[in-house]
Amino acid sequence: MKKNILVIPGDGIGPEVTTWGKAALEKIAEIFGHEFVFDEAIMGHAAIEVTGEPLPDETLEKARKSDAILFGAIGHAKYDNDPSLKVRPEQGLLKIRKELGLFANLRPILLFDELLQASSIKPEILKGTDILFFRELTGDVYFGEKSRSEDRNTASDLMIYHRYEVERIAHKAYQAAQQRNKRLCSVDKANVLESSRLWRETVQEIAKQYPDVETEHMFIDNAAMQLIKNPKKFDVVLTANLFGDILTDEASQIAGSMGMLASASVGESTGFFEPIHGSAHDITGKDLANPLASILSAALMLEIGFGLKDEAKLLVDTVDAVLKDGFRTHDIADQSTNRFKVLGTAEMGKLVLK
Amino acid sequence: MKKNILVIPGDGIGPEVTTWGKAALEKIAEIFGHEFVFDEAIMGHAAIEVTGEPLPDETLEKARKSDAILFGAIGHAKYDNDPSLKVRPEQGLLKIRKELGLFANLRPILLFDELLQASSIKPEILKGTDILFFRELTGDVYFGEKSRSEDRNTASDLMIYHRYEVERIAHKAYQAAQQRNKRLCSVDKANVLESSRLWRETVQEIAKQYPDVETEHMFIDNAAMQLIKNPKKFDVVLTANLFGDILTDEASQIAGSMGMLASASVGESTGFFEPIHGSAHDITGKDLANPLASILSAALMLEIGFGLKDEAKLLVDTVDAVLKDGFRTHDIADQSTNRFKVLGTAEMGKLVLK
Ligand SMILES: CC(C)[C@H](C(=O)O)[C@@H](O)C(=O)O
Ligand SMILES: CC(C)[C@H](C(=O)O)[C@@H](O)C(=O)O
Repeated sequence: MKKNILVIPGDGIGPEVTTWGKAALEKIAEIFGHEFVFDEAIMGHAAIEVTGEPLPDETLEKARKSDAILFGAIGHAKYDNDPSLKVRPEQGLLKIRKELGLFANLRPILLFDELLQASSIKPEILKGTDILFFRELTGDVYFGEKSRSEDRNTASDLMIYHRYEVERIAHKAYQAAQQRNKRLCSVDKANVLESSRLWRETVQEIAKQYPDVETEHMFIDNAAMQLIKNPKKFDVVLTANLFGDILTDEASQIAGSMGMLASASVGESTGFFEPIHGSAHDITGKDLANPLASILSAALMLEIGFGLKDEAKLLVDTVDAVLKDGFRTHDIADQSTNRFKVLGTAEMGKLVLK
Repeated sequence: MKKNILVIPGDGIGPEVTTWGKAALEKIAEIFGHEFVFDEAIMGHAAIEVTGEPLPDETLEKARKSDAILFGAIGHAKYDNDPSLKVRPEQGLLKIRKELGLFANLRPILLFDELLQASSIKPEILKGTDILFFRELTGDVYFGEKSRSEDRNTASDLMIYHRYEVERIAHKAYQAAQQRNKRLCSVDKANVLESSRLWRETVQEIAKQYPDVETEHMFIDNAAMQLIKNPKKFDVVLTANLFGDILTDEASQIAGSMGMLASASVGESTGFFEPIHGSAHDITGKDLANPLASILSAALMLEIGFGLKDEAKLLVDTVDAVLKDGFRTHDIADQSTNRFKVLGTAEMGKLVLK
């Protein structure tokens, strides 16, 4: 199989982890005899520094032409500390999601048995958890009109949904639920928000087309609580952009660390694969980042992007084997025991490749 | 001391738990020689059934005249299942918050040592946690303009903040932090939302007036994760209405159960005290609800509403003693051991009074 893959390392720890996601893809190509042609592009703070724009046209063009994108992370402390800056790294990520029509963000909560102890949640609560999040990615308050009054004392963002936006992701989520445990939980705040009432109404309608899937509707506040109280009760979780952002970060504790979670954004054409962790400026360049989320993002690209199940499985199994052998990065090492061999980013990356 | 207290039991388990919050106040009045004069009023589904309105004028008038309000819960399955209903119970709660100017919602995460095991989070992660949330309560997407297109295919809610709204709650939160561990974490989504950028800017300004308090700014997605990863790192958490709704429900797992958490809403005049749990239709009338959150709401009324510290402490200590004696309601009982004496709502209420 021949595929063109665009690598966008981005900001912060993005470059150091993406190196290993890319290397994993190269290794897979070598083993299975595929031809993966790589190109690279800039985005975020890295792009602002060079071009003044968070998403240069050239990057977008390369993205449109590629079969899949492997992305790192975005964001920089400079902008976080100065909310008044007009040009911001995150705009690049939001724009590419919108431009490529990446309306469905899949975030599987993959639980490696070996990491049950790494979580702050009790192992017996976690064991057996298997959740697949469908986060809507191109609507909501992320993309609604923003405004700031002239005196700068009032600011607003429009939380807005159109029925077709809810329908298309609901279909994807229900289809996934049919292949899994046939339970779907839709999360909203319909007791307060009109956009959530549209969300709930629409999901109720779509649900009728999937009578084999059991549907539950839950308020976001309750869901944030249930997710850690009893994560096993969830199978597919379907939710809006903002609520999905919050719930999936929270859910990363189920997997032991944010450093373990990958995501796939799909929609109209090219798929976009990235760790759910952020740019983590505090540990950038210190060889402390966990490259496994990028490697698992590569696995998602193989499986969801290219339909290469065996190739994806080999990557996931290798990560599992490395964990079984007691190797850990800092974020998933239990400091209280000496049982683990704690590795830096590069050592961990190399080990998986071997 | 003479005080007029309005009791609004509300919907679902509201009435069954509020009975015990009120009884606790009566007992305290008796012991300490105060005169608490009680009145009662309807709100939510209970009020819609009788008057067609979720917040009848009479209830609002009584509320304005009282010195403090003890509230139960709001909401009903009928409305949750039918998003198209125009008159909804929650509108009553939102309206009374707005009308009484209750802009600051204080949610202390009170951790009873006895309940360390009741949480899904590991006891060693929880131990020593002491968080006070300040949730803004009369702004945000809760109160911004809502709209639905004529074809009903588009729906929106305006997420909006004015600088003065952020300032007044920030001052309250900083003042509380000064009395506590002098750390304040402000939670927003300033990397995406304009209203959050106003929020962050404003908090940065106010922070300068409290140089003795250490300020941190955190994105909501990260906060949802950190809260369960390392709850001890938080002291005062300051956040917007929607983010506060989500984070405090999530944080209820720190306290072992939502059934243990009370909240105080304060602002311009009369204080409003309520459990953070909802109406819980599924267990309504089954004698399964935990009355302790209502009793602890009464304690918050005594302390924050009336400045009666000793009276409040007696209530909290009594709850602690009952837990130490091994008594539990269903939500906080560890089903796997026989160590606990599991009580119904009424038995637990009576026991605390004794
Ligand atoms: C960086 C930020 C804009 C982004 C988001 O909020 O979508 C990130 O948190 C994510 O979840 O991918
Ligand atoms: C019932 C609902 C409107 C309310 C809210 O969202 O504010 C509740 O969840 C709360 O936290 O008090």
